[in-house]
Amino acid sequence: MARLGSNQYGKAETHLVRVVRDGAAHELRDLLVSVALSGELEAVHLDGDNSAVLATDTQKNTVYAFAKEHGVGTPEQFGALLARHFLGGAITRARVEVREVGWTRLSDHAFAQGSREERIAVVVADESQWFASGLSGLVVLKTTDSEFHGFPRDRYTTLAETRDRVLATEVSARWRHDGTASFEDARRALLECFAAHHSLSLQQTLYAMGSAVLEACPAVQEIRLSMPNKHHFVVDLTPFGLSNENEVFHADDRPYGLIEGAVVRDGAPDAGPLWDPYPLV
Amino acid sequence: MARLGSNQYGKAETHLVRVVRDGAAHELRDLLVSVALSGELEAVHLDGDNSAVLATDTQKNTVYAFAKEHGVGTPEQFGALLARHFLGGAITRARVEVREVGWTRLSDHAFAQGSREERIAVVVADESQWFASGLSGLVVLKTTDSEFHGFPRDRYTTLAETRDRVLATEVSARWRHDGTASFEDARRALLECFAAHHSLSLQQTLYAMGSAVLEACPAVQEIRLSMPNKHHFVVDLTPFGLSNENEVFHADDRPYGLIEGAVVRDGAPDAGPLWDPYPLV
Amino acid sequence: MARLGSNQYGKAETHLVRVVRDGAAHELRDLLVSVALSGELEAVHLDGDNSAVLATDTQKNTVYAFAKEHGVGTPEQFGALLARHFLGGAITRARVEVREVGWTRLSDHAFAQGSREERIAVVVADESQWFASGLSGLVVLKTTDSEFHGFPRDRYTTLAETRDRVLATEVSARWRHDGTASFEDARRALLECFAAHHSLSLQQTLYAMGSAVLEACPAVQEIRLSMPNKHHFVVDLTPFGLSNENEVFHADDRPYGLIEGAVVRDGAPDAGPLWDPYPLV
Amino acid sequence: MARLGSNQYGKAETHLVRVVRDGAAHELRDLLVSVALSGELEAVHLDGDNSAVLATDTQKNTVYAFAKEHGVGTPEQFGALLARHFLGGAITRARVEVREVGWTRLSDHAFAQGSREERIAVVVADESQWFASGLSGLVVLKTTDSEFHGFPRDRYTTLAETRDRVLATEVSARWRHDGTASFEDARRALLECFAAHHSLSLQQTLYAMGSAVLEACPAVQEIRLSMPNKHHFVVDLTPFGLSNENEVFHADDRPYGLIEGAVVRDGAPDAGPLWDPYPLV
Repeated sequence: MARLGSNQYGKAETHLVRVVRDGAAHELRDLLVSVALSGELEAVHLDGDNSAVLATDTQKNTVYAFAKEHGVGTPEQFGALLARHFLGGAITRARVEVREVGWTRLSDHAFAQGSREERIAVVVADESQWFASGLSGLVVLKTTDSEFHGFPRDRYTTLAETRDRVLATEVSARWRHDGTASFEDARRALLECFAAHHSLSLQQTLYAMGSAVLEACPAVQEIRLSMPNKHHFVVDLTPFGLSNENEVFHADDRPYGLIEGAVVRDGAPDAGPLWDPYPLV
Repeated sequence: MARLGSNQYGKAETHLVRVVRDGAAHELRDLLVSVALSGELEAVHLDGDNSAVLATDTQKNTVYAFAKEHGVGTPEQFGALLARHFLGGAITRARVEVREVGWTRLSDHAFAQGSREERIAVVVADESQWFASGLSGLVVLKTTDSEFHGFPRDRYTTLAETRDRVLATEVSARWRHDGTASFEDARRALLECFAAHHSLSLQQTLYAMGSAVLEACPAVQEIRLSMPNKHHFVVDLTPFGLSNENEVFHADDRPYGLIEGAVVRDGAPDAGPLWDPYPLV
Repeated sequence: MARLGSNQYGKAETHLVRVVRDGAAHELRDLLVSVALSGELEAVHLDGDNSAVLATDTQKNTVYAFAKEHGVGTPEQFGALLARHFLGGAITRARVEVREVGWTRLSDHAFAQGSREERIAVVVADESQWFASGLSGLVVLKTTDSEFHGFPRDRYTTLAETRDRVLATEVSARWRHDGTASFEDARRALLECFAAHHSLSLQQTLYAMGSAVLEACPAVQEIRLSMPNKHHFVVDLTPFGLSNENEVFHADDRPYGLIEGAVVRDGAPDAGPLWDPYPLV
Repeated sequence: MARLGSNQYGKAETHLVRVVRDGAAHELRDLLVSVALSGELEAVHLDGDNSAVLATDTQKNTVYAFAKEHGVGTPEQFGALLARHFLGGAITRARVEVREVGWTRLSDHAFAQGSREERIAVVVADESQWFASGLSGLVVLKTTDSEFHGFPRDRYTTLAETRDRVLATEVSARWRHDGTASFEDARRALLECFAAHHSLSLQQTLYAMGSAVLEACPAVQEIRLSMPNKHHFVVDLTPFGLSNENEVFHADDRPYGLIEGAVVRDGAPDAGPLWDPYPLV
């Protein structure tokens, strides 16, 4: 009467810190690793037969052990190494997501967390290998060069048109590629485009930023961007006899506009399982 | 050289509180409403032409105005009313997600927030209308009737087998149906099954809970469940000369197992756009 | 040239889950325990001499071991037992804070987390023993019986007076007593007073709630309350040709009014170290 | 039978963004402002008489208006201006806390949020004026030069002594002064001391960091530091036949050691109301 549909399981958010102590100056890496495995897993779901279920505890151990045995390399390399390792037997697909936070060097052995922005790598291994890179927590704002007008007005529209507003967002991005795209080039393209773009809408800015990454990174086939419009409302100071020419803002929390879109290279191959939802719900 | 791929936009997390003041006893509803619209939106992305872009501010106004004009009804009804309203012109698909928190009555006019568990309704309107209901934040635990053994052991396996462990999770669920499924029946089926099930693995429990919902709710075609394994580790008290027969636990935060799966009714129709990712990234 | 000032240290947020498995129906307790010790600790601060520093790891072990050896009892009893244990040698004062979350029984062995509201006990042991009990996360709202008018108007005042508004808050409270006050009586007094009180200001409601606890609990000498004014703004629906007689609200996140005050019984003894800040910064 | 004890009220977390648009390159400031007023406020608490209660909405308006009228200056200057303004009538003490997040310039008009570290200023005005400056969210780690041994061992001690461990913390600090201390000098002293210090305990490091600020900033009379010990546990890789010479760590969330202390300059004047708790509960 019923059957097992989409499913995956694994250890999420293993917080690995790796120190390389070879030279006078230590290296520091700070990664959050999440594994999700899928395959022929009917037996455990229907009968509680765990013979195909690599324990999530074992997955965690593997993350730590691999960090020692193989080193971390780029997040993409580390993710790929892990994902391939988990394939076999009932497991026909492995997804590894790595989230890395950067640290700034204070001295040979001391570091400060530069920012909570995360660099992200997603690797899915099945009969093929699929890569997406990305970032989250990149908060940017421009004080001008942003307009919003010409939108339709219906019975419920009260918003005034504007030729000059503050535009702020927290960029989340994922770009898929063959594993060779430069993270630094992609991030730089996002920032430079945001700074230089004269915006008529956040959608236009999003598309321009995505296009800039495709231009800067030939290996990138598609980029997906999620950009909440972090509203900065001009405070009405007229009751106090004061003008406010876009100088004083209330930065609001909720609600927020949420603008999302993908830019896809012409002729891009299929995305495979890369955009399958994680988590599933 | 590039084109617009998947995209959607809208006002997220409009926090609406609706009071019905008709009788001596007021009614209180507390909803978080998120709208996402999609359709023929190339013009705004490529050229900054906003003529098809219903402002997210207008969407927010509509949420508030509809709460007055039409009342809220069930979250599914309110979502459907809003979703259908936003269709038209360039907008060919509207997704509305409603998250409701319950309040307990203290008196005719006073209430306490019973729990932060959320009841969720997702409605997608295009040429058809698609419904999913669900919940998040349902934290449950069983002190026994949970085993985990028979899993494969590889070089990285250290976990001991267990015939008796604490099992705890925070259930997130979405079940799709034609708009007629009873939320209360589905929630009750989840809880009763969790309480009664003798678990050989969290996957098995998940599948049983999903099946129970399908059995209790004939209108439900599929249920998706995400159930983090909130690990409760038996503390080793032997250094202190004490036994610990599953009495004293350390409740750990991270990492956690993340077990996810769907149970699908035989002959279920296609899910349509219901499971499309929101947010996109 | 400088000296050590106020200081304390300890293990914070040990997450203890205690199951009592004596009968057919198990009992479940879920506690977050934070310890802070102080005393003659110059040596460790100035010279790194740890001979007086009971390791925070040992404190954590003690929490778990005591849960087995002595059981948990009330949060106040468990806190007192721990606090007294840590006294001795250089340690002349021990503060233990216990935060407990309640679970609802589903069956003999299964439970659901009823709410994330926390019951709190603070015990400080030095040559005496000091008790405060309390709660946090108690979210309450009244749909009427709240006014706010008669406040002064200066150059920067734009707020309209109101004879009827929604009043919502998340109560944090601590009441000090000799260890014998009934938590249930105090919580009930807070809720009943909130529900019954006709409010001219949140300050007045706060004072009435505090007084109600003093009346209901003879052992309570003082109660401190922190009550954020969770603003619910009436949405202006007139642009849409709709009235809004306190029916449709925007529940705002920030900023919020923060109303705080204490009600002290006449002749109350000194509070001792109970209100010393934790954390210090 | 009862009386009003400690109390304060005000608008918390007004999120002000101030843009200075004078030249080609705009300036951007991002502040969270919290006000707390106290004084002769019995009438509102006991009788709901609001004639002395400057509405928190007015306080919020004042924050925005002052940002336009007077500019922001340093957080200490802005806080002092506001605090003095609120004095008068029943209000005999005003506390203003400013939390500022920094932005990195991308171009004349575009910025990225450099970090979520906060610079903090607390100003209390009564018949005098009291200043504390500080920071929160400064996450630092050292990969070596940290030991912990010589601590007492009791029945519940299992922790091994170590001559080399990772030390990580998230520094919260407040230093009180006459309004003239340099924030940059104090922050630099904290970081340089953390990086250079050979630690025998986190308490010793805390005291050294505090002393360094006192040395670098003659105007600082006292510094209070709260430094959670963010445990990095060496993962046992021996089951996998691997060594782990402080190379692979599990960064744990909870519990954590919480080490707090003050360093006070000899002859420091009284702290006045600076360390009074905010919030009260």
